[in-house]
Amino acid sequence: MRIALGVEYDGTDFLGWQRLTHGATVQGALELALSRVAAAPVAVTCAGRTDAGVHGRCQVVHFDTEVERDMRGWVLGACSNLPTSVAVLWAQPVPESFHARFCARSRRYRYTILNRPVRAALDARYVTWERLRLDAEAMHAAGQALLGEHDFSAFRAVSCQAAHARRCVLALDVRREGDQVTVDIEANAFLHHMVRNIVGSLLPVGRGQQPVAWPAGLLAGRDREVAGPTAPASGLTFLGPRYEPHWGLPLEVSA
Amino acid sequence: MRIALGVEYDGTDFLGWQRLTHGATVQGALELALSRVAAAPVAVTCAGRTDAGVHGRCQVVHFDTEVERDMRGWVLGACSNLPTSVAVLWAQPVPESFHARFCARSRRYRYTILNRPVRAALDARYVTWERLRLDAEAMHAAGQALLGEHDFSAFRAVSCQAAHARRCVLALDVRREGDQVTVDIEANAFLHHMVRNIVGSLLPVGRGQQPVAWPAGLLAGRDREVAGPTAPASGLTFLGPRYEPHWGLPLEVSA
Repeated sequence: MRIALGVEYDGTDFLGWQRLTHGATVQGALELALSRVAAAPVAVTCAGRTDAGVHGRCQVVHFDTEVERDMRGWVLGACSNLPTSVAVLWAQPVPESFHARFCARSRRYRYTILNRPVRAALDARYVTWERLRLDAEAMHAAGQALLGEHDFSAFRAVSCQAAHARRCVLALDVRREGDQVTVDIEANAFLHHMVRNIVGSLLPVGRGQQPVAWPAGLLAGRDREVAGPTAPASGLTFLGPRYEPHWGLPLEVSA
Repeated sequence: MRIALGVEYDGTDFLGWQRLTHGATVQGALELALSRVAAAPVAVTCAGRTDAGVHGRCQVVHFDTEVERDMRGWVLGACSNLPTSVAVLWAQPVPESFHARFCARSRRYRYTILNRPVRAALDARYVTWERLRLDAEAMHAAGQALLGEHDFSAFRAVSCQAAHARRCVLALDVRREGDQVTVDIEANAFLHHMVRNIVGSLLPVGRGQQPVAWPAGLLAGRDREVAGPTAPASGLTFLGPRYEPHWGLPLEVSA
Protein backbone atom coordinates (compact mmCIF):
# COMPACT_ATOMS: atom_id res chain seq x y z
CA MET A 1 0.00 0.00 0.00
CA ARG A 2 1.00 3.63 -0.51
CA ILE A 3 1.14 5.99 2.46
CA ALA A 4 1.54 9.78 2.53
CA LEU A 5 3.20 11.55 5.48
CA GLY A 6 3.42 15.18 6.61
CA VAL A 7 6.92 15.95 7.88
CA GLU A 8 8.21 18.91 9.90
CA TYR A 9 11.92 19.58 10.27
CA ASP A 10 14.51 22.05 11.48
CA GLY A 11 17.03 22.00 8.65
CA THR A 12 19.83 23.74 10.59
CA ASP A 13 21.87 20.63 11.30
CA PHE A 14 21.17 18.76 8.04
CA LEU A 15 22.97 18.81 4.71
CA GLY A 16 19.55 19.20 3.10
CA TRP A 17 16.66 16.91 2.24
CA GLN A 18 18.21 14.48 -0.21
CA ARG A 19 19.92 11.34 1.08
CA LEU A 20 23.70 11.46 0.97
CA THR A 21 26.31 8.92 1.96
CA HIS A 22 28.60 11.46 3.66
CA GLY A 23 26.36 13.27 6.15
CA ALA A 24 23.02 13.74 7.91
CA THR A 25 20.01 14.48 5.70
CA VAL A 26 16.30 14.71 6.46
CA GLN A 27 15.46 11.99 3.93
CA GLY A 28 18.12 9.74 5.42
CA ALA A 29 16.83 10.24 8.98
CA LEU A 30 13.21 9.69 7.89
CA GLU A 31 13.93 6.54 5.87
CA LEU A 32 15.95 5.07 8.73
CA ALA A 33 13.11 5.76 11.19
CA LEU A 34 10.43 4.34 8.87
CA SER A 35 12.56 1.29 8.11
CA ARG A 36 12.77 0.59 11.84
CA VAL A 37 9.00 0.87 12.19
CA ALA A 38 8.47 -1.39 9.16
CA ALA A 39 11.36 -3.72 10.04
CA ALA A 40 12.05 -3.54 6.30
CA PRO A 41 13.69 -0.98 3.99
CA VAL A 42 11.53 2.07 3.21
CA ALA A 43 12.30 4.65 0.49
CA VAL A 44 10.38 7.95 0.42
CA THR A 45 9.62 10.41 -2.39
CA CYS A 46 9.09 14.04 -1.36
CA ALA A 47 7.05 16.92 -2.79
CA GLY A 48 10.02 19.27 -2.96
CA ARG A 49 13.66 18.82 -1.96
CA THR A 50 15.12 21.48 0.31
CA ASP A 51 18.74 22.65 0.61
CA ALA A 52 21.06 22.54 3.61
CA GLY A 53 19.75 24.75 6.44
CA VAL A 54 16.26 25.15 4.93
CA HIS A 55 13.36 24.12 7.18
CA GLY A 56 10.14 22.23 6.49
CA ARG A 57 6.79 23.10 8.04
CA CYS A 58 4.77 20.44 6.21
CA GLN A 59 6.86 18.57 3.66
CA VAL A 60 4.85 15.72 2.13
CA VAL A 61 6.31 12.34 1.17
CA HIS A 62 4.89 9.04 -0.01
CA PHE A 63 6.24 5.52 0.30
CA ASP A 64 5.14 1.99 -0.55
CA THR A 65 5.10 -0.80 1.96
CA GLU A 66 3.80 -4.34 2.41
CA VAL A 67 3.83 -3.90 6.17
CA GLU A 68 0.52 -3.57 8.02
CA ARG A 69 0.58 -0.76 10.61
CA ASP A 70 -2.21 1.56 11.61
CA MET A 71 -1.60 5.24 10.75
CA ARG A 72 -1.06 6.16 14.38
CA GLY A 73 1.64 3.48 14.53
CA TRP A 74 3.51 5.01 11.60
CA VAL A 75 3.36 8.51 13.14
CA LEU A 76 4.34 7.58 16.69
CA GLY A 77 6.83 4.94 15.60
CA ALA A 78 8.57 7.31 13.21
CA CYS A 79 8.65 10.16 15.76
CA SER A 80 10.23 7.97 18.41
CA ASN A 81 12.93 6.87 15.94
CA LEU A 82 13.66 10.34 14.54
CA PRO A 83 16.06 12.95 15.94
CA THR A 84 14.31 15.82 17.80
CA SER A 85 14.74 18.06 14.74
CA VAL A 86 12.34 15.95 12.61
CA ALA A 87 8.73 14.95 13.34
CA VAL A 88 6.06 13.11 11.35
CA LEU A 89 2.84 15.11 11.71
CA TRP A 90 0.36 12.68 10.14
CA ALA A 91 0.12 9.55 8.01
CA GLN A 92 -2.61 8.68 5.55
CA PRO A 93 -3.23 5.86 3.07
CA VAL A 94 -3.39 7.10 -0.52
CA PRO A 95 -4.17 5.43 -3.86
CA GLU A 96 -1.25 4.04 -5.91
CA SER A 97 -1.91 6.91 -8.33
CA PHE A 98 -0.88 9.49 -5.72
CA HIS A 99 2.65 10.84 -6.10
CA ALA A 100 3.97 13.41 -3.59
CA ARG A 101 5.90 15.31 -6.25
CA PHE A 102 3.87 14.92 -9.45
CA CYS A 103 0.44 15.41 -7.88
CA ALA A 104 1.36 18.64 -6.07
CA ARG A 105 -0.56 21.52 -7.63
CA SER A 106 1.62 24.13 -5.96
CA ARG A 107 4.29 24.70 -3.31
CA ARG A 108 4.47 27.41 -0.68
CA TYR A 109 7.62 28.89 0.86
CA ARG A 110 8.13 31.48 3.58
CA TYR A 111 11.24 33.62 3.94
CA THR A 112 11.66 35.39 7.30
CA ILE A 113 13.91 38.42 7.75
CA LEU A 114 14.79 39.87 11.14
CA ASN A 115 15.07 43.57 10.33
CA ARG A 116 16.76 45.46 13.17
CA PRO A 117 20.14 46.96 14.02
CA VAL A 118 21.44 43.89 15.89
CA ARG A 119 21.61 40.21 14.93
CA ALA A 120 19.24 37.53 16.22
CA ALA A 121 19.78 35.58 19.44
CA LEU A 122 16.31 34.04 19.87
CA ASP A 123 15.08 32.38 16.64
CA ALA A 124 18.55 32.68 15.09
CA ARG A 125 17.97 29.33 13.34
CA TYR A 126 14.84 30.55 11.59
CA VAL A 127 15.61 34.05 10.33
CA THR A 128 18.01 35.96 8.14
CA TRP A 129 19.28 39.18 9.65
CA GLU A 130 19.07 42.46 7.72
CA ARG A 131 20.50 45.49 9.52
CA LEU A 132 19.27 48.23 7.15
CA ARG A 133 15.63 49.24 7.47
CA LEU A 134 13.57 47.53 4.75
CA ASP A 135 10.60 49.08 2.95
CA ALA A 136 8.33 46.02 2.94
CA GLU A 137 5.69 47.80 0.85
CA ALA A 138 8.22 48.54 -1.89
CA MET A 139 9.37 44.90 -1.80
CA HIS A 140 5.76 43.74 -2.09
CA ALA A 141 5.08 46.07 -5.01
CA ALA A 142 8.28 44.93 -6.76
CA GLY A 143 7.35 41.28 -6.28
CA GLN A 144 4.00 41.63 -8.06
CA ALA A 145 5.83 41.76 -11.41
CA LEU A 146 6.81 38.10 -10.88
CA LEU A 147 3.21 36.85 -10.70
CA GLY A 148 2.05 34.59 -13.50
CA GLU A 149 3.92 32.28 -15.84
CA HIS A 150 7.42 33.42 -16.83
CA ASP A 151 10.88 32.17 -17.67
CA PHE A 152 12.64 32.48 -14.30
CA SER A 153 16.19 32.02 -15.61
CA ALA A 154 17.23 35.20 -13.79
CA PHE A 155 16.44 33.50 -10.46
CA ARG A 156 17.71 30.01 -11.23
CA ALA A 157 20.81 28.45 -9.67
CA VAL A 158 23.59 27.45 -12.05
CA SER A 159 23.29 23.94 -10.61
CA CYS A 160 19.54 23.72 -11.41
CA GLN A 161 18.71 20.52 -13.28
CA ALA A 162 15.16 21.37 -14.38
CA ALA A 163 14.34 20.81 -18.07
CA HIS A 164 13.16 24.40 -18.53
CA ALA A 165 12.81 27.59 -16.50
CA ARG A 166 9.11 28.32 -16.99
CA ARG A 167 7.26 28.45 -13.68
CA CYS A 168 3.98 30.04 -12.60
CA VAL A 169 4.06 32.21 -9.46
CA LEU A 170 0.56 32.24 -7.93
CA ALA A 171 1.15 34.61 -5.02
CA LEU A 172 3.96 36.74 -3.60
CA ASP A 173 3.27 38.68 -0.42
CA VAL A 174 5.71 40.75 1.60
CA ARG A 175 4.60 42.13 4.96
CA ARG A 176 6.12 43.60 8.09
CA GLU A 177 5.17 42.72 11.67
CA GLY A 178 7.31 44.65 14.13
CA ASP A 179 10.95 44.00 13.29
CA GLN A 180 10.13 40.96 11.15
CA VAL A 181 9.62 41.07 7.37
CA THR A 182 8.04 37.97 5.84
CA VAL A 183 8.02 36.97 2.16
CA ASP A 184 5.46 34.29 1.24
CA ILE A 185 5.68 32.80 -2.25
CA GLU A 186 3.45 30.20 -3.86
CA ALA A 187 4.19 28.75 -7.31
CA ASN A 188 3.24 25.64 -9.26
CA ALA A 189 6.87 24.57 -8.81
CA PHE A 190 10.24 26.17 -8.10
CA LEU A 191 13.65 26.13 -9.72
CA HIS A 192 16.72 25.45 -7.59
CA HIS A 193 17.39 28.47 -5.29
CA MET A 194 14.45 30.31 -6.89
CA VAL A 195 12.93 31.61 -3.62
CA ARG A 196 16.30 32.64 -2.19
CA ASN A 197 17.27 34.34 -5.45
CA ILE A 198 13.97 36.22 -5.64
CA VAL A 199 14.37 37.36 -2.01
CA GLY A 200 17.97 38.34 -2.81
CA SER A 201 16.60 40.62 -5.54
CA LEU A 202 13.79 42.07 -3.41
CA LEU A 203 16.21 43.03 -0.60
CA PRO A 204 18.01 45.77 -2.62
CA VAL A 205 14.57 47.25 -3.38
CA GLY A 206 13.70 47.13 0.33
CA ARG A 207 16.95 48.89 1.20
CA GLY A 208 16.28 51.59 -1.40
CA GLN A 209 19.34 50.56 -3.41
CA GLN A 210 17.29 49.58 -6.46
CA PRO A 211 13.98 50.90 -7.83
CA VAL A 212 10.70 49.01 -7.45
CA ALA A 213 10.84 48.12 -11.16
CA TRP A 214 14.22 46.36 -10.81
CA PRO A 215 13.00 42.75 -10.29
CA ALA A 216 10.68 43.09 -13.31
CA GLY A 217 13.67 44.07 -15.43
CA LEU A 218 15.75 41.18 -14.06
CA LEU A 219 12.96 38.74 -14.91
CA ALA A 220 12.72 40.05 -18.47
CA GLY A 221 16.52 39.94 -18.89
CA ARG A 222 16.73 36.24 -17.84
CA ASP A 223 20.33 36.78 -16.75
CA ARG A 224 21.26 35.27 -13.38
CA GLU A 225 24.52 37.24 -13.39
CA VAL A 226 22.87 40.63 -12.88
CA ALA A 227 20.21 39.65 -10.32
CA GLY A 228 20.72 39.93 -6.55
CA PRO A 229 22.76 37.38 -4.56
CA THR A 230 21.18 34.20 -3.16
CA ALA A 231 19.67 35.01 0.27
CA PRO A 232 20.89 32.77 3.15
CA ALA A 233 19.23 29.41 3.80
CA SER A 234 18.36 29.96 7.48
CA GLY A 235 15.42 32.29 6.76
CA LEU A 236 13.71 29.83 4.40
CA THR A 237 10.93 27.42 5.36
CA PHE A 238 9.11 25.13 2.94
CA LEU A 239 5.53 25.53 4.20
CA GLY A 240 4.50 22.62 2.02
CA PRO A 241 2.79 21.49 -1.17
CA ARG A 242 -0.90 21.68 -1.99
CA TYR A 243 -2.91 18.83 -3.55
CA GLU A 244 -6.36 18.48 -5.05
CA PRO A 245 -8.98 18.03 -2.32
CA HIS A 246 -10.08 14.68 -3.79
CA TRP A 247 -6.94 13.04 -2.35
CA GLY A 248 -8.46 13.65 1.06
CA LEU A 249 -5.19 14.84 2.65
CA PRO A 250 -5.17 17.05 5.77
CA LEU A 251 -6.43 20.60 5.31
CA GLU A 252 -2.99 22.27 5.45
CA VAL A 253 -1.93 20.56 2.19
CA SER A 254 -5.33 20.41 0.50
CA ALA A 255 -6.35 23.22 -1.84
CA MET B 1 28.63 56.29 34.53
CA ARG B 2 25.72 53.86 34.69
CA ILE B 3 24.48 52.17 31.51
CA ALA B 4 21.34 50.09 30.94
CA LEU B 5 21.24 47.35 28.28
CA GLY B 6 18.45 45.32 26.67
CA VAL B 7 19.55 41.70 26.26
CA GLU B 8 17.99 38.89 24.17
CA TYR B 9 19.03 35.28 24.68
CA ASP B 10 18.23 31.69 23.80
CA GLY B 11 18.56 29.96 27.17
CA THR B 12 18.68 26.40 25.79
CA ASP B 13 22.42 25.93 26.13
CA PHE B 14 22.93 27.93 29.34
CA LEU B 15 22.76 26.85 32.98
CA GLY B 16 20.59 29.92 33.55
CA TRP B 17 21.22 33.64 34.00
CA GLN B 18 23.32 33.78 37.11
CA ARG B 19 27.11 33.52 36.85
CA LEU B 20 28.52 30.16 37.93
CA THR B 21 32.07 28.88 38.06
CA HIS B 22 31.21 25.44 36.64
CA GLY B 23 29.35 26.18 33.39
CA ALA B 24 28.05 28.61 30.78
CA THR B 25 25.59 31.27 31.98
CA VAL B 26 24.09 34.29 30.24
CA GLN B 27 25.47 36.67 32.86
CA GLY B 28 28.91 35.13 32.51
CA ALA B 29 28.87 35.46 28.71
CA LEU B 30 27.59 39.05 28.89
CA GLU B 31 30.12 40.19 31.51
CA LEU B 32 32.96 38.62 29.55
CA ALA B 33 31.84 40.39 26.35
CA LEU B 34 31.40 43.77 28.09
CA SER B 35 34.74 43.40 29.86
CA ARG B 36 36.41 42.94 26.50
CA VAL B 37 34.70 46.05 25.13
CA ALA B 38 35.68 48.03 28.24
CA ALA B 39 39.13 46.43 28.54
CA ALA B 40 38.27 46.34 32.25
CA PRO B 41 36.11 44.11 34.45
CA VAL B 42 32.36 44.75 34.14
CA ALA B 43 29.71 43.35 36.51
CA VAL B 44 26.01 43.53 35.54
CA THR B 45 22.81 43.53 37.62
CA CYS B 46 19.68 42.17 35.92
CA ALA B 47 15.96 42.87 36.27
CA GLY B 48 15.09 39.21 36.84
CA ARG B 49 17.23 36.08 36.88
CA THR B 50 16.08 33.21 34.69
CA ASP B 51 16.60 29.47 35.17
CA ALA B 52 18.42 27.00 32.93
CA GLY B 53 16.69 26.68 29.55
CA VAL B 54 14.53 29.81 30.01
CA HIS B 55 14.83 32.45 27.27
CA GLY B 56 15.00 36.25 27.40
CA ARG B 57 13.27 38.53 24.89
CA CYS B 58 14.31 41.81 26.54
CA GLN B 59 16.12 41.24 29.80
CA VAL B 60 17.41 44.55 31.22
CA VAL B 61 20.70 44.97 33.06
CA HIS B 62 22.69 47.90 34.37
CA PHE B 63 26.41 48.27 34.97
CA ASP B 64 28.82 50.98 36.06
CA THR B 65 31.93 51.88 34.11
CA GLU B 66 34.60 54.57 33.92
CA VAL B 67 35.21 53.72 30.27
CA GLU B 68 34.05 56.17 27.59
CA ARG B 69 32.30 54.43 24.69
CA ASP B 70 29.38 55.64 22.64
CA MET B 71 26.20 53.59 23.03
CA ARG B 72 26.55 52.08 19.56
CA GLY B 73 30.03 50.94 20.54
CA TRP B 74 28.69 49.07 23.59
CA VAL B 75 25.98 47.35 21.52
CA LEU B 76 28.11 46.35 18.55
CA GLY B 77 31.17 45.55 20.65
CA ALA B 78 29.16 43.33 23.00
CA CYS B 79 27.37 41.55 20.13
CA SER B 80 30.61 40.73 18.38
CA ASN B 81 32.05 39.27 21.61
CA LEU B 82 28.93 37.27 22.56
CA PRO B 83 27.99 33.74 21.44
CA THR B 84 25.26 33.69 18.76
CA SER B 85 22.67 32.77 21.42
CA VAL B 86 22.99 36.19 23.16
CA ALA B 87 22.59 39.69 21.69
CA VAL B 88 22.59 43.19 23.19
CA LEU B 89 19.61 45.04 21.69
CA TRP B 90 20.32 48.57 22.92
CA ALA B 91 22.40 50.55 25.40
CA GLN B 92 21.40 53.73 27.15
CA PRO B 93 22.97 55.96 29.81
CA VAL B 94 20.87 56.11 32.98
CA PRO B 95 21.16 58.09 36.24
CA GLU B 96 23.03 56.51 39.17
CA SER B 97 19.62 56.18 40.85
CA PHE B 98 18.46 53.66 38.21
CA HIS B 99 18.64 50.02 39.27
CA ALA B 100 17.57 47.29 36.79
CA ARG B 101 16.00 45.17 39.53
CA PHE B 102 14.69 47.63 42.12
CA CYS B 103 13.26 50.16 39.66
CA ALA B 104 11.29 47.59 37.63
CA ARG B 105 7.57 48.20 38.16
CA SER B 106 6.61 44.85 36.72
CA ARG B 107 7.89 41.83 34.81
CA ARG B 108 6.27 39.99 31.90
CA TYR B 109 6.68 36.33 31.02
CA ARG B 110 5.31 34.25 28.15
CA TYR B 111 4.81 30.50 28.26
CA THR B 112 4.29 28.78 24.88
CA ILE B 113 2.66 25.36 24.56
CA LEU B 114 2.64 23.38 21.31
CA ASN B 115 -0.69 21.58 21.54
CA ARG B 116 -0.92 18.78 18.97
CA PRO B 117 -0.63 15.00 18.81
CA VAL B 118 3.08 14.97 17.87
CA ARG B 119 6.11 16.65 19.42
CA ALA B 120 7.84 19.73 18.01
CA ALA B 121 10.60 19.63 15.40
CA LEU B 122 10.66 23.30 14.35
CA ASP B 123 10.77 25.66 17.37
CA ALA B 124 11.50 22.72 19.70
CA ARG B 125 13.75 25.04 21.78
CA TYR B 126 10.95 27.50 22.41
CA VAL B 127 7.87 25.45 23.25
CA THR B 128 6.61 22.83 25.63
CA TRP B 129 4.69 20.01 24.00
CA GLU B 130 1.24 19.00 25.25
CA ARG B 131 -0.38 16.10 23.44
CA LEU B 132 -3.88 16.30 24.93
CA ARG B 133 -6.16 18.97 23.51
CA LEU B 134 -6.22 22.00 25.84
CA ASP B 135 -9.25 24.18 26.52
CA ALA B 136 -7.49 27.57 26.44
CA GLU B 137 -10.66 29.41 27.44
CA ALA B 138 -11.00 27.29 30.59
CA MET B 139 -7.33 27.94 31.40
CA HIS B 140 -7.85 31.67 30.93
CA ALA B 141 -10.93 31.66 33.15
CA ALA B 142 -9.09 29.66 35.83
CA GLY B 143 -6.16 32.07 35.74
CA GLN B 144 -8.27 35.12 36.48
CA ALA B 145 -8.52 34.00 40.13
CA LEU B 146 -4.80 34.72 40.48
CA LEU B 147 -5.10 38.41 39.56
CA GLY B 148 -4.32 40.91 42.30
CA GLU B 149 -2.14 40.70 45.41
CA HIS B 150 -1.98 37.27 47.06
CA ASP B 151 0.30 34.96 48.98
CA PHE B 152 1.62 32.73 46.15
CA SER B 153 3.11 30.03 48.42
CA ALA B 154 1.24 27.37 46.41
CA PHE B 155 3.25 28.31 43.31
CA ARG B 156 6.64 28.91 44.96
CA ALA B 157 9.69 26.66 44.53
CA VAL B 158 11.05 25.06 47.68
CA SER B 159 14.38 26.69 46.80
CA CYS B 160 12.85 30.20 46.61
CA GLN B 161 14.82 32.70 48.70
CA ALA B 162 12.35 35.60 48.70
CA ALA B 163 11.55 37.16 52.07
CA HIS B 164 7.81 36.63 51.63
CA ALA B 165 5.40 35.16 49.08
CA ARG B 166 3.12 38.13 48.47
CA ARG B 167 3.10 39.19 44.84
CA CYS B 168 0.67 41.16 42.69
CA VAL B 169 -0.38 39.58 39.37
CA LEU B 170 -1.42 42.39 37.01
CA ALA B 171 -2.51 40.33 34.00
CA LEU B 172 -2.86 36.68 33.03
CA ASP B 173 -4.00 35.87 29.51
CA VAL B 174 -4.31 32.46 27.88
CA ARG B 175 -5.08 32.26 24.18
CA ARG B 176 -4.95 29.77 21.34
CA GLU B 177 -3.62 30.43 17.84
CA GLY B 178 -3.79 27.27 15.74
CA ASP B 179 -1.97 24.51 17.61
CA GLN B 180 -0.20 26.97 19.91
CA VAL B 181 -1.49 27.96 23.36
CA THR B 182 0.19 31.01 24.92
CA VAL B 183 0.10 32.07 28.57
CA ASP B 184 1.15 35.69 29.21
CA ILE B 185 1.65 36.73 32.84
CA GLU B 186 2.60 40.13 34.21
CA ALA B 187 3.26 40.71 37.91
CA ASN B 188 5.08 43.27 40.05
CA ALA B 189 7.62 40.49 40.73
CA PHE B 190 7.78 36.69 40.65
CA LEU B 191 8.78 34.00 43.10
CA HIS B 192 11.18 31.28 41.97
CA HIS B 193 9.41 28.95 39.48
CA MET B 194 6.18 30.94 39.92
CA VAL B 195 5.28 31.14 36.21
CA ARG B 196 6.12 27.49 35.55
CA ASN B 197 4.18 26.40 38.63
CA ILE B 198 1.14 28.47 37.66
CA VAL B 199 1.25 27.01 34.13
CA GLY B 200 1.65 23.55 35.65
CA SER B 201 -1.61 24.13 37.53
CA LEU B 202 -3.47 25.60 34.54
CA LEU B 203 -2.59 22.59 32.34
CA PRO B 204 -4.79 20.08 34.29
CA VAL B 205 -7.67 22.56 33.87
CA GLY B 206 -6.97 22.77 30.14
CA ARG B 207 -6.95 18.98 29.87
CA GLY B 208 -10.26 18.76 31.73
CA GLN B 209 -8.63 16.86 34.61
CA GLN B 210 -9.40 19.61 37.13
CA PRO B 211 -12.27 22.12 37.35
CA VAL B 212 -11.83 25.79 36.46
CA ALA B 213 -11.97 26.68 40.17
CA TRP B 214 -8.98 24.46 41.00
CA PRO B 215 -6.18 27.09 40.78
CA ALA B 216 -8.20 29.45 42.99
CA GLY B 217 -8.39 26.72 45.64
CA LEU B 218 -4.68 26.00 45.33
CA LEU B 219 -3.89 29.70 45.80
CA ALA B 220 -6.07 29.87 48.93
CA GLY B 221 -4.53 26.67 50.33
CA ARG B 222 -0.94 28.00 50.00
CA ASP B 223 0.34 24.43 49.78
CA ARG B 224 2.93 23.74 47.08
CA GLU B 225 2.53 19.99 47.61
CA VAL B 226 -1.00 19.83 46.15
CA ALA B 227 -0.55 22.19 43.17
CA GLY B 228 0.41 21.02 39.68
CA PRO B 229 3.98 20.07 38.72
CA THR B 230 6.49 22.67 37.50
CA ALA B 231 6.06 23.08 33.72
CA PRO B 232 9.27 22.56 31.65
CA ALA B 233 11.72 25.45 31.15
CA SER B 234 11.81 25.36 27.34
CA GLY B 235 8.39 26.98 26.90
CA LEU B 236 9.24 29.98 29.08
CA THR B 237 10.47 33.36 27.83
CA PHE B 238 11.12 36.39 30.03
CA LEU B 239 9.64 39.13 27.84
CA GLY B 240 11.19 41.72 30.12
CA PRO B 241 10.64 44.26 32.89
CA ARG B 242 8.77 47.53 32.69
CA TYR B 243 10.03 50.83 34.09
CA GLU B 244 8.53 54.27 34.69
CA PRO B 245 8.56 56.31 31.48
CA HIS B 246 10.67 59.05 33.14
CA TRP B 247 13.78 56.81 32.86
CA GLY B 248 13.50 57.31 29.10
CA LEU B 249 14.21 53.67 28.25
CA PRO B 250 13.10 52.12 24.92
CA LEU B 251 9.37 51.68 24.47
CA GLU B 252 9.35 47.89 24.95
CA VAL B 253 10.42 48.27 28.61
CA SER B 254 8.72 51.58 29.37
CA ALA B 255 5.23 51.57 30.86
